[in-house]
Amino acid sequence: MIDSSIIDQQDIDRICRSEKIAVESLKKELERGTVVVPKNKNHKNAKTIGIGKGLRTKINVNLGTSPDLVDYDLELSKLELSIKLGADTVMDLSTGGDLVKLRQEILHKSSLPVGTVPIYEVLCSLNRRGDSIEKMTVRDLFSTIRAHLESGVDFITVHCGLTKRAIPLIEKRRRVTGIVSRGGSFLYRWMKANQKENPLYQYYDELLDLAKEYNATLSLGDGLRPGSIADATDSVQIDELLILGELVERARDHGVQSMVEGPGHIPLNEIEANVLLEKKICKEAPFYVLGPLVIDCAPGYDDIVSAIGGAVAAASGADFLCYVTPAEHLSLPSLDDVRRGIVASKIAAHAGDIAKGIRGSMNLDEEISRARKEFSWEKIVNLSLDPDTARTKRGKLSDDSRKCTMCGQFCAMREDT
Amino acid sequence: MIDSSIIDQQDIDRICRSEKIAVESLKKELERGTVVVPKNKNHKNAKTIGIGKGLRTKINVNLGTSPDLVDYDLELSKLELSIKLGADTVMDLSTGGDLVKLRQEILHKSSLPVGTVPIYEVLCSLNRRGDSIEKMTVRDLFSTIRAHLESGVDFITVHCGLTKRAIPLIEKRRRVTGIVSRGGSFLYRWMKANQKENPLYQYYDELLDLAKEYNATLSLGDGLRPGSIADATDSVQIDELLILGELVERARDHGVQSMVEGPGHIPLNEIEANVLLEKKICKEAPFYVLGPLVIDCAPGYDDIVSAIGGAVAAASGADFLCYVTPAEHLSLPSLDDVRRGIVASKIAAHAGDIAKGIRGSMNLDEEISRARKEFSWEKIVNLSLDPDTARTKRGKLSDDSRKCTMCGQFCAMREDT
Repeated sequence: MIDSSIIDQQDIDRICRSEKIAVESLKKELERGTVVVPKNKNHKNAKTIGIGKGLRTKINVNLGTSPDLVDYDLELSKLELSIKLGADTVMDLSTGGDLVKLRQEILHKSSLPVGTVPIYEVLCSLNRRGDSIEKMTVRDLFSTIRAHLESGVDFITVHCGLTKRAIPLIEKRRRVTGIVSRGGSFLYRWMKANQKENPLYQYYDELLDLAKEYNATLSLGDGLRPGSIADATDSVQIDELLILGELVERARDHGVQSMVEGPGHIPLNEIEANVLLEKKICKEAPFYVLGPLVIDCAPGYDDIVSAIGGAVAAASGADFLCYVTPAEHLSLPSLDDVRRGIVASKIAAHAGDIAKGIRGSMNLDEEISRARKEFSWEKIVNLSLDPDTARTKRGKLSDDSRKCTMCGQFCAMREDT
Repeated sequence: MIDSSIIDQQDIDRICRSEKIAVESLKKELERGTVVVPKNKNHKNAKTIGIGKGLRTKINVNLGTSPDLVDYDLELSKLELSIKLGADTVMDLSTGGDLVKLRQEILHKSSLPVGTVPIYEVLCSLNRRGDSIEKMTVRDLFSTIRAHLESGVDFITVHCGLTKRAIPLIEKRRRVTGIVSRGGSFLYRWMKANQKENPLYQYYDELLDLAKEYNATLSLGDGLRPGSIADATDSVQIDELLILGELVERARDHGVQSMVEGPGHIPLNEIEANVLLEKKICKEAPFYVLGPLVIDCAPGYDDIVSAIGGAVAAASGADFLCYVTPAEHLSLPSLDDVRRGIVASKIAAHAGDIAKGIRGSMNLDEEISRARKEFSWEKIVNLSLDPDTARTKRGKLSDDSRKCTMCGQFCAMREDT
C-alpha cells in the first residue's frame, strides 16, 4: 500500500479542486496505487498532478535532442509551448549533446512533472567512450538512475518487464517489426550478449529503494510493445504485461508509486481489450499509452492516427496519453510538429473524458457552442484548445460579423432556430 | 426492391474486383438497397463505386464557392487534389458565382461520382432576384432538382425528413445550437412562413420519379442533425431519423437507390448507438456521416476531431464519411486544408475498415511496416497515404540511410530483433 502522506496535503487539495473530486476519494486511490502523483522530492517548482482512476486523462510531451540534431533552445521552446498549450507532463528523451545540462535546464524551467528514460544516457555515455550497449555494467545503469532521481526527475521509464524468458518468444514469433522500443532493444541485446537477466528486473528491489528515496514514480516500460498493427496484442506483448503486473504489486508492497506503459500500434478494434487487460493484470495501475496508432500507412499524419487511438483508449479507461507528432517515424519534430502533436493529444484526451463521463468535461464544449450560436468570434477563439491557430485560420474575418467565408449570408446559424 | 440491372455489368465486375467480393453478393446487396452505386445515366466519365454493406468505407470531399469567395480555379484544383489523393466522391456545394457553369465543369472533369444539394441553388437564385427563401415555390425547387439531374449529378442531398411535425419539437427542445444544416434551416423557415409541409416530403413520389428517370441516388439529408455534442442523439434528431426510415422503404419500393445522412456532432460514446439506430430504423441503408465531431472546442483542428469520430463510426458500420477540414467552423478551406481533410478522412476510413474486418485492409499496413523494418525510405514514402507530405517531412534524409533524425544511430529498428 502507498502511504498517501508522501504527497503534501496542499498538493492533494489542489488536485481535488481541479479535478472536482473529494479528498478522501483521491487519498484512497493513491493508497491503492490506482492513482499516481509523480513528484520527486527534489523537483521543487513542479505543480502536482494526479494520473489515474476517476481523473481527467493527462497528456505527455516528449522533448529532447538526438545525435544528429542538438539544439537546446529548440527543446526549451518545446517545453514553453507544452506549458502554454496545457500539456500535463514532459519527458526529456535526449540522446545528443550535453544530456546532463539540458536535463537540469528542463527541470529548472518546467512547471510540469518531468520524466526521463535513464538508459538512454547510459547508452550515450558508452557510445562516447566507444563502447556498445553490451559493455554496460549494472553499476553504470543504477548510478545513472540515481543521478536522474537526485536531479529531480519525477518519473522514470524503466523496462523492467523485458526478461530473459522473452528471448525465445521473440525468436519464435518472427514479428513484422521486432522490437521497436529503444530501451527494450538495448536490454535485449545486453541480455543476449551477456547471458544474464535484465538488471532492472534482477535488482528490482534496489530500484524500488531508489524510487522510494526520492519519492519518484516508476513508469514500467513496455520494451516489447508492437511497432506495427500486425504485431499488436501478440503473445510477446502480453507475456511482458504479465510480468509488469507482478512488478506493480511489488512496487505497491514497497510503497512505491508505479504506472504501466502500453502500446504503440494497435488496430482500433483491439484497443478496448488492451486497456481492459492492463487494468485486470496490473490491478488497475494507471495506464500510460503511446498513441496508440491505429494504422501504419500514414507517415506525416501520425498525430491524427494517434488521436484516434488515444481517444478510444482514454474512453476505454487509459489514464495518460503520450503525444505523437506528425514527424513520428520520419524525423525529429519541429516546433510546429510539437504544437500539432500536443493539440491532437489534448483532443483525444478530451474526447475520451467526455466518453468516460469525467465530471464537467462537456462544459467547455457547451460554452463554445453557445458562443458559436451567438457569432461571438473572439470568445470562440479564446475558448478553443489552440487559440493562436483558430485565430489564424479565421483570418481577416476575426471580428463579430455574423458570417463566415464558408456559408456567407446563407449560414444556418443565423436563423432563429 | 432495386433492379440491379440499372448498373452496367462491367461496372459491377469492376467494383467486385476492387472490393474482392463476389458478383452475386454485390447484386444481392444492391437489390436489397444495402449498397448503392451512385451513377447518373448522364455522367459518362465517372467511375462507379459501391457504398454500403461489406464494402470499403468511402470518403466524400466537399468543394464549392461561397458568396464571399468565388474562385473557380481553386475549386477545380480541389477536385484535382481529391482525385489524386484517392477520394471516392465529391460534392459541389457552391453558393457563389455562376453555379451552373462551375457544376458543369466539375461534372466534366470529375472521374469521381458528383453530388450536390440542389436547394442551395434555389436559394442563390431567389437571393439574386432579391427574394428570401420563404418565396420559394415548389416549382422552383423541383425544376432545379431536374436541372441538376439532367446535367449528370450522381447523388443529391434532399432534406425530405424534416417535416412540419418537427416545428413544435424544436421549439420545445431549445437546443444549444438549433438547426445547423443549411438546407434544413431554409426548409424550416419556409414551412413556418408558408404554413405548408416540406415539399420534398409532400411530393416525395415525384422526387422518386425524377431520381429514377436519371438513375440518381438520393442522399436523404439530416436537416435536424445536432450542431454541438450537447444536442446529440436528442429527440429532434431521432424523430427525423424515424421519418427517413420510412422514406428509405418508399424509395426501395419505387426502385430508387437511397442512403441516409447522419451527424454531425456526437460524443465518442454515442457514435456506436447512432450507427446501430440508423441501421435498424433505416433497414441497413448505407449511412453517410458528416464527421462525426466528438468535441466542439478545437476549431482549427476539426479534421482531427472528425477523424476520431469517423474512425469509430466506420468501425461501427458507417459506410461513407464526409470529410471535414481544419477550416470547418472558421472559413472556406484552402487547398492545404482540403489536403488535410482528405487524408484525415482516409485515415479514419482505413482505421474503420481494419476494425470492421474488410478483407485485405491490413495489407498496406503490413507492407509499409516491412519497408520500415528494412529502412526502405522510398518505399515507405511511396506507400503512404500522402506521399508528398511524407517526403517533405522526411526532408533531406530521404535516402536509404539506416536512421532518422529521431533516434539517429540509436534506432531500435536497426537491431536484429
